[in-house]
Amino acid sequence: MSTPSLLILPGDGIGPEVMTEVRKIIDWYGAKRDLQFDVSEDLVGGIAYDKHGVPLTDETMAKAQEADAVLLGAVGGPQYDNLDFSLKPERGLLRLRKEMDLFSNLRPAQCFDALADFSSLKRDVVAGLDIMIVRELTSGVYFGEPRGVSVNANGEREGVNTQRYTESEIARVARSAFELAKRRGNKVCSMEKANVMESGVLWREVVQEVHDKEYPEVELSHMYADAGGMQLCRWPKQFDVIVTDNLFGDLLSDVAAMLTGSLGMLPSASLGAPMENGRPKALYEPVHGSAPDIAGQGKANPIACILSFAMALRYSFDQGAEADRLEAAVEKVLAEGLRTADLMGPEGGTPVSTSQMGDAIVAAL
Amino acid sequence: MSTPSLLILPGDGIGPEVMTEVRKIIDWYGAKRDLQFDVSEDLVGGIAYDKHGVPLTDETMAKAQEADAVLLGAVGGPQYDNLDFSLKPERGLLRLRKEMDLFSNLRPAQCFDALADFSSLKRDVVAGLDIMIVRELTSGVYFGEPRGVSVNANGEREGVNTQRYTESEIARVARSAFELAKRRGNKVCSMEKANVMESGVLWREVVQEVHDKEYPEVELSHMYADAGGMQLCRWPKQFDVIVTDNLFGDLLSDVAAMLTGSLGMLPSASLGAPMENGRPKALYEPVHGSAPDIAGQGKANPIACILSFAMALRYSFDQGAEADRLEAAVEKVLAEGLRTADLMGPEGGTPVSTSQMGDAIVAAL
Ligand SMILES: CC(C)[C@H](C(=O)O)[C@@H](O)C(=O)O
Ligand SMILES: CC(C)[C@H](C(=O)O)[C@@H](O)C(=O)O
Repeated sequence: MSTPSLLILPGDGIGPEVMTEVRKIIDWYGAKRDLQFDVSEDLVGGIAYDKHGVPLTDETMAKAQEADAVLLGAVGGPQYDNLDFSLKPERGLLRLRKEMDLFSNLRPAQCFDALADFSSLKRDVVAGLDIMIVRELTSGVYFGEPRGVSVNANGEREGVNTQRYTESEIARVARSAFELAKRRGNKVCSMEKANVMESGVLWREVVQEVHDKEYPEVELSHMYADAGGMQLCRWPKQFDVIVTDNLFGDLLSDVAAMLTGSLGMLPSASLGAPMENGRPKALYEPVHGSAPDIAGQGKANPIACILSFAMALRYSFDQGAEADRLEAAVEKVLAEGLRTADLMGPEGGTPVSTSQMGDAIVAAL
Repeated sequence: MSTPSLLILPGDGIGPEVMTEVRKIIDWYGAKRDLQFDVSEDLVGGIAYDKHGVPLTDETMAKAQEADAVLLGAVGGPQYDNLDFSLKPERGLLRLRKEMDLFSNLRPAQCFDALADFSSLKRDVVAGLDIMIVRELTSGVYFGEPRGVSVNANGEREGVNTQRYTESEIARVARSAFELAKRRGNKVCSMEKANVMESGVLWREVVQEVHDKEYPEVELSHMYADAGGMQLCRWPKQFDVIVTDNLFGDLLSDVAAMLTGSLGMLPSASLGAPMENGRPKALYEPVHGSAPDIAGQGKANPIACILSFAMALRYSFDQGAEADRLEAAVEKVLAEGLRTADLMGPEGGTPVSTSQMGDAIVAAL
């Protein structure tokens, strides 16, 4: 098999600095474990707009389609706030998700033991927490037509977006949630607002149908998304896998991530259908954003991005054992007390910069 | 002035039992403070469907339009899960909100001192918390057309809902948030997803315009709703008033309510435009749901519904001092250690039933 290709898109804000640390990890795997990647790098987001006038060029899009996996840092920043909607940094990311058809977004909400006290939640509520949120990523209100701001018959401005789901769009993301559950706690909770939205009624129906026909052995429950948000805050350990739509998934996964106290630590994988070589189309990115306020100061925590590469090892390159190794290395440096600024709680620790953290993880490998 | 009218709609589940306790409070105000109300009672939700085949009859709707204030318990229950969408208990509530044009939904998220340890969050994160979420309640994706489930050109079922906001809908709820902020901490944070939804772009623009023209003295910030959810979980005390749309408001206010540890305690007010007598159209209801699992067992906590009546005293009947009195009575019984089942934490307390709690509050008045 030829060397797998990896397209790196550092993006904006702290994206480039955390990606520098990931490259150290990639180099280590090449040198020490003979795991070579054909790495190339390109622009996405505000930086692509600055250079090319668009947040993602057609050339970069084509490269992403070809790559065995894409690794993205973060996009966005206040200097782009007043750009036209179609040119905003986020459109670059959304175009990647949509055109690569990355319908299944895996967002683990995991509490790292060494950081349990760092959560705003009580220790016993979050310690040991390990849930997986599966967010539909290519449809729903982010993409539905009609959309836009226009002037209506009364001469008023009116803003419109459309929440739209077909049964096949729901079924495929449900399948990916059930598959994951089988390899975890065998439990899926599906969340929508079927009590007030017809798109939620269909969502619930289709998830139930896929369950009954294809995964009757997995435990399935349904919850309204508002109650789901509450239950996440009350007792998150009741969940194993949560499956939900694009918009609810955005909110609920962010809430879940914050609850763990490990926000700067959390990776994500966005997966599509298998390519010819059997690998799924895939993009990996940290859950955190571009954090423009701390960019360029060596304060960023590279762990979420490094763990996103671990997810790539697991889901794109069938290297589960190497992913475990990398995750263990991260746990080790945390247990040793190394802390980037965002992880510095009242209980202290050894303060390290972005690059010191990266070096320590390489050393721990 | 003639005796103000109060329409009571106990609804489903624990609705009727908590409302029984509110009636004790109303009676006390009539007997002891010479505050008389012309009280009538009617059906909404599943119980209305059982009796009349619809979750809200036209007659009840007309009564609600006439009433000086409506007090609602809760709607919904699993026995109605398979009803046609248009007959679900929730449709009764939504019809009230829509036809009374109750565009501004006030949801205080307040942490009662005696219950601070009951939150899943750490004490210092929530103790003393007092924020107000203003949710737009009559538009957005709950009501936008087109909507429904149909079969599309590919022969697939497709579910559609439409997020739709006009500038006047946004402006009026923004105004109500700014007005509230002036009487509180003078700070408003507006939440949307302007980075991915055009309706959010318009939302942000209009809120900013209303601010600049009419409320320049109030501090205004904007946050993406996902980041807002995170910040609510991390450090909720950074907020004073939050204003957001119908769907985001549903989720975010539920998350905020749960965080306080006081879910069974939280009231809400839904306000519309002033009527001829100067009072706003108004409906008051607890934030909690119908809790069918504990209905009829004397386990329900009547405080949220009682505090909803306190909000009615304040916002509909200009009886702020009497509202304060009622709230103080609630604080008193809590401080004395009285606890309904939902409030029974590890630190114990005196267990009381729904009606014992109501009696104790009357006694404390
Ligand atoms: C950056 C933005 C477009 C994105 C989203 O809303 O999907 C982000 O919040 C996320 O959750 O990945
Ligand atoms: C019962 C339901 C229709 C309602 C809503 O979604 O608005 C409830 O969740 C609420 O928040 O008041």
